[in-house]
Amino acid sequence: MKVAIDAMGGDFAPEAIVVGAIEAVSEHEDIRVILVGDEKRINEFFKGRRYPSDRISIYHTTSVVEMNDSLSSAIRGKKNSSIYKTIDLVKDQQADAAVSAGHSGVVMATSLFVLGKLQHVERPVIATLMPSLTGHFLLADVGANVDCKPENLLEFAQMGNAYYEAIFDTASARIALLSIGEEDTKGNELTKKAFKYLKNANINFIGNIEGKDIFSGNADVVICDGFVGNVVLKTSEGLAETILKMLKMEIANSTIGRLGYLMIKPSIKGFRAKMDYSDYGGAPLLGINGTCIISHGRSSARAIKNAIRVASETARKKVHEIIENNLIKAKGIS
Amino acid sequence: MKVAIDAMGGDFAPEAIVVGAIEAVSEHEDIRVILVGDEKRINEFFKGRRYPSDRISIYHTTSVVEMNDSLSSAIRGKKNSSIYKTIDLVKDQQADAAVSAGHSGVVMATSLFVLGKLQHVERPVIATLMPSLTGHFLLADVGANVDCKPENLLEFAQMGNAYYEAIFDTASARIALLSIGEEDTKGNELTKKAFKYLKNANINFIGNIEGKDIFSGNADVVICDGFVGNVVLKTSEGLAETILKMLKMEIANSTIGRLGYLMIKPSIKGFRAKMDYSDYGGAPLLGINGTCIISHGRSSARAIKNAIRVASETARKKVHEIIENNLIKAKGIS
Repeated sequence: MKVAIDAMGGDFAPEAIVVGAIEAVSEHEDIRVILVGDEKRINEFFKGRRYPSDRISIYHTTSVVEMNDSLSSAIRGKKNSSIYKTIDLVKDQQADAAVSAGHSGVVMATSLFVLGKLQHVERPVIATLMPSLTGHFLLADVGANVDCKPENLLEFAQMGNAYYEAIFDTASARIALLSIGEEDTKGNELTKKAFKYLKNANINFIGNIEGKDIFSGNADVVICDGFVGNVVLKTSEGLAETILKMLKMEIANSTIGRLGYLMIKPSIKGFRAKMDYSDYGGAPLLGINGTCIISHGRSSARAIKNAIRVASETARKKVHEIIENNLIKAKGIS
Repeated sequence: MKVAIDAMGGDFAPEAIVVGAIEAVSEHEDIRVILVGDEKRINEFFKGRRYPSDRISIYHTTSVVEMNDSLSSAIRGKKNSSIYKTIDLVKDQQADAAVSAGHSGVVMATSLFVLGKLQHVERPVIATLMPSLTGHFLLADVGANVDCKPENLLEFAQMGNAYYEAIFDTASARIALLSIGEEDTKGNELTKKAFKYLKNANINFIGNIEGKDIFSGNADVVICDGFVGNVVLKTSEGLAETILKMLKMEIANSTIGRLGYLMIKPSIKGFRAKMDYSDYGGAPLLGINGTCIISHGRSSARAIKNAIRVASETARKKVHEIIENNLIKAKGIS
C-alpha cells in the first residue's frame, strides 16, 4: 500500500512526519510512503538515518496551509499546498491513502472537494478510537457534523460499524447510541428519533449508552452528533490530564507519598501510553470516495507511524467500498 | 433556615438521610431540618444517637415514589409522597428549602408543579459544581432541558451567574459557553446563536470554552444544553473511575508499583475526596419560585449533610429572588 502524507501538517512537522514515515516503512515491508511538502526541509531530517529508500519518496510542493487561512482560500486558493496535493495523489491513484496532521477542517473539506463523498453517503463522519477498560471503542462523529438529523446518526453507525469490523477483523461490532439514560425514551429529540432508526438497522445495536459507561468496554462503536462527540473527546483529554495533575499535587503533599510516587512512576508511564491517542494514529474520515486519516495536530513521530499503518490497513481492507456496498444493501438500492 | 428533606429518597435512604440531617443540625446551629417520610423507619436511625432534638423534626408520610413510577402518576397520583410533601412544605412556607435524593426527574417536575417557575423564567435549569484544578466550576444545564433554544442558554447563564455569585460571595463570575473551539465562529447552530446573546448580556462572559479546558479553573460557570451537560457530567464520572481503575491495574503489574501504591494510598483517598460530588451536596434547581436541591441518588450521609447546608445557604441568600430581579433588569421590565 502506498500512503501519501502531508509532511508540513502538525505542530511538529516536518520532523515528526519524516521520522514517523521512516519508522513506518522500516517496520512494515508492504508500506510505501510519499512525503508531500518542501523537499529541502524534508531532506534535512533524513540526514544520518538509515531506511529503505526504495519505499519512501518526496513529492515536492512549496505552498502550506496556515492555521488562520480560511477554508475556501485553503482549498480553492492553495491547490499546490501539501494538504491538497496529499489528497490529490489519492484522487490520481498515485497513492492508496492520505494522512494529514494539518488543520483538520481543511483536511476534511479538501477530502470532500477532491475525492468527493461516496454516492450513497449523505454526511461523511470523523471517527476516533478512545481507550476503554478492556481496550478501546470507536467514537463517531467527533466533529465533522455539528448539527445532525436522525438519519445522519444511522449513517454514522453504518460507517463506524464497517470500519470497526474491517480493521479489527470482527463480526457484529456492538453499536451504542450516546444518550442520557439507557431506556429508549431517554435522550433529546435527535437521539430519540435516531434510536428508532438504529433499532431497525441491520447492525448489532445494543441501545443507548450513558457517558459513565462508554469507557467500560461494553460497546465497540459509540454514536453521537459531532458537537457532542467533540465535547466528549476533548473533555476526556482535559479530565485525564487534570486527574493526573491533581493526583500528583495530592501525592506531593506527603513525604511518603513522594517516595511512593517514584515507585509507581513506571506504571503511570505505562498508563499514559494506554491513554495516548498516538497509539491510534489518527481518525479516519469515513464516507468519502477514498481513504483519508486525520491526525491530531500534536502528533509525535510515533503517532504518525501509527497513522500511516492505519491508513494502509484502511485502504487495504477497502473500507470505503465496504461502506458503499453496505449502504446500498441497507437502502435496498439495486 | 428550615430545610425539608425527603427522607425516603436515594439509594441509602432513610439511613443516610437521617444521619446526614443529624450531622447538619449538629454542625450548623442556624439550621433546622424536617425529615419527610415514614416516621417509624426514620426513628430507627435516631436510636443511640445524640443530636439537638429541638432542631430536627419528622413530617410523617407513608407514600413513596418508586423509580419506575411515571412522572404524571408520581406527581398527580402521589400528593402524599415524601418528595411531594417535602416540596409542598416550602410552598406552605413551613420550610425555606427542599432537598431530595429521589428520582431527579420527579423532583424537578414536582418542584415545577408545586412551586412553579419564577415569573420571568422560561426554563429552569439544573446546575452542578464540578471539581477543577483550582477548586470548582458550575456546569449548567446538566439535564433539565435536553432540547434548547439560544435564549434558554442565556437564561441559564443569568441564573448560574446569580447562584455562583451569591453562594461564593464573589462579583463578576467568569461565564463561558461550552463549545468545540474558542473562536465565536466555532460551535453548532445553538451555541453560535447563544454566543451572540451572551456577548451582549450584562454578565462577565469570557467566550467559548472547550471540553479540554473546563477543568483548568479558567471559568466559574460553564453553560450548555442539558443533553450535552448531562453527557459531560456522566462521562467525567465514568472517566475518573476508569482512570483510577486502569492506573491501579497498571500498578498491580509491578512489585515495586504495588509497594508504591500502599504509600500513595492516602493521597488517592485525598484526591477522591476532592473529586467527590458529596462535597457539593447536590445540584440546585434554579428558576423556580423557591429553593430546591436535587441530590445524587447515591448520596451518602456526608453528601446529604452538605446538601442541607447548600439548601440553607441558597435560601438564606434568597437566590431565587436575586434571579428574578436580575432577569427583570436584563429584560428591561419595569
